[in-house]
Amino acid sequence: MSKTIDVCLSPELMHLHNVQDRTVVVVDILRATSCMVTALANGADSIMPFADLEECRKMKMRGFVTSGEREGKKVDGFDKGNSPFEYMGEEVRGLKIAFTTTNGTQAIEKSKDAKQVIIGSFLNLTAVVRNLLLGENSVLIVCAGWKGRVNLEDTLFAGAVVEKLKDYLGPDCDAPLAARHLYNMAKDDMSKFLSESSHVKRLNRLNIHEDFEFCLTVDKYNVLPRLKNGMITV
Amino acid sequence: MSKTIDVCLSPELMHLHNVQDRTVVVVDILRATSCMVTALANGADSIMPFADLEECRKMKMRGFVTSGEREGKKVDGFDKGNSPFEYMGEEVRGLKIAFTTTNGTQAIEKSKDAKQVIIGSFLNLTAVVRNLLLGENSVLIVCAGWKGRVNLEDTLFAGAVVEKLKDYLGPDCDAPLAARHLYNMAKDDMSKFLSESSHVKRLNRLNIHEDFEFCLTVDKYNVLPRLKNGMITV
Repeated sequence: MSKTIDVCLSPELMHLHNVQDRTVVVVDILRATSCMVTALANGADSIMPFADLEECRKMKMRGFVTSGEREGKKVDGFDKGNSPFEYMGEEVRGLKIAFTTTNGTQAIEKSKDAKQVIIGSFLNLTAVVRNLLLGENSVLIVCAGWKGRVNLEDTLFAGAVVEKLKDYLGPDCDAPLAARHLYNMAKDDMSKFLSESSHVKRLNRLNIHEDFEFCLTVDKYNVLPRLKNGMITV
Repeated sequence: MSKTIDVCLSPELMHLHNVQDRTVVVVDILRATSCMVTALANGADSIMPFADLEECRKMKMRGFVTSGEREGKKVDGFDKGNSPFEYMGEEVRGLKIAFTTTNGTQAIEKSKDAKQVIIGSFLNLTAVVRNLLLGENSVLIVCAGWKGRVNLEDTLFAGAVVEKLKDYLGPDCDAPLAARHLYNMAKDDMSKFLSESSHVKRLNRLNIHEDFEFCLTVDKYNVLPRLKNGMITV
């Protein structure tokens, strides 16, 4: 049987998908998975994702750096927030990070029964595509969205992957087709295409336009973070 | 507060939406809502939608014509299936129809708490848009999809409505934006755009390409079916 590719546009639709035989790519462009990729590319030891904020907070006592956001803002008492610029440079090397976010870490939690879980972002797009192409599994891209709602930036990433694999992996349903159409419409200027999206407006209110531009950078890092036994490493 | 427009790309995402103050447009282009619009435009008295097949079947004893499909095929023992061509002409006049389908009537069931529920299709697009423009409520378009999955044809309809109202109703989130982009990409040849979609392939296997072309006809009928007390009438 030939490999196929599917897209789950919201974690709230995960119950429709059987992931046991699939490679799942979790994506939360703004900004969870972009941060994770940045941290691991900059030498962080590992990232432990938490859906629950208080569970994450407890990891401080176990020597983890606590990181993440709620409502787009750094959690009170946490060491780091959810900007990729906090996960660069020498200070990141060797860190064990406990991470929780509004959408991204929830999507990872819902994907954990997959045969393989990898962390995707535009920053490591080609590394992701290469893994999917060379691997034996069919693929499901899980878009983190925003509180269950579909968002454009994660959909565009899904569309980019579908587009790049279109000669090798057939679409399972209409969601990959829709994502691919949107990506092809947006690809020449994703920043402009996304400028009217709800999440970008939300981020602009938080004065983090630089984060937005950074998270749209394609192939800045050649790393492939994977989830294994509850831990993300490269 | 100004009116807004939102799109629910799958009935499985309805729990994210508060519909009590909204006009909900339910759409199942292939083919439930296209059939309903056709039947009522051809003089049918009323349509009673059922999510449950056996509940629908029982209505035969009460003088209703039983109609609908499962897996795209007419239900065993029912009077009519789910082709719009079965709902035309003199024989339809005055009929009371009990209707159940895989996706469309489920979406109606989930929308029934809305302030107003109207039935949309390309066949009555302008009648729908006019009602939404003149009405006081914010809008939610509920795409019936396919067994919980997003489909292209319902998304295109949602996008058409968002596009036509774009100067009057602002989008609530990214789903209306995505739908509008897809519609603008597809509008010059929707048939071609949809030719690779999963549902169209499914219908073509069932040899109902004529249904497909008919259901994409814009503004064939000037009717506005509404759900009231469990009954759809114009």
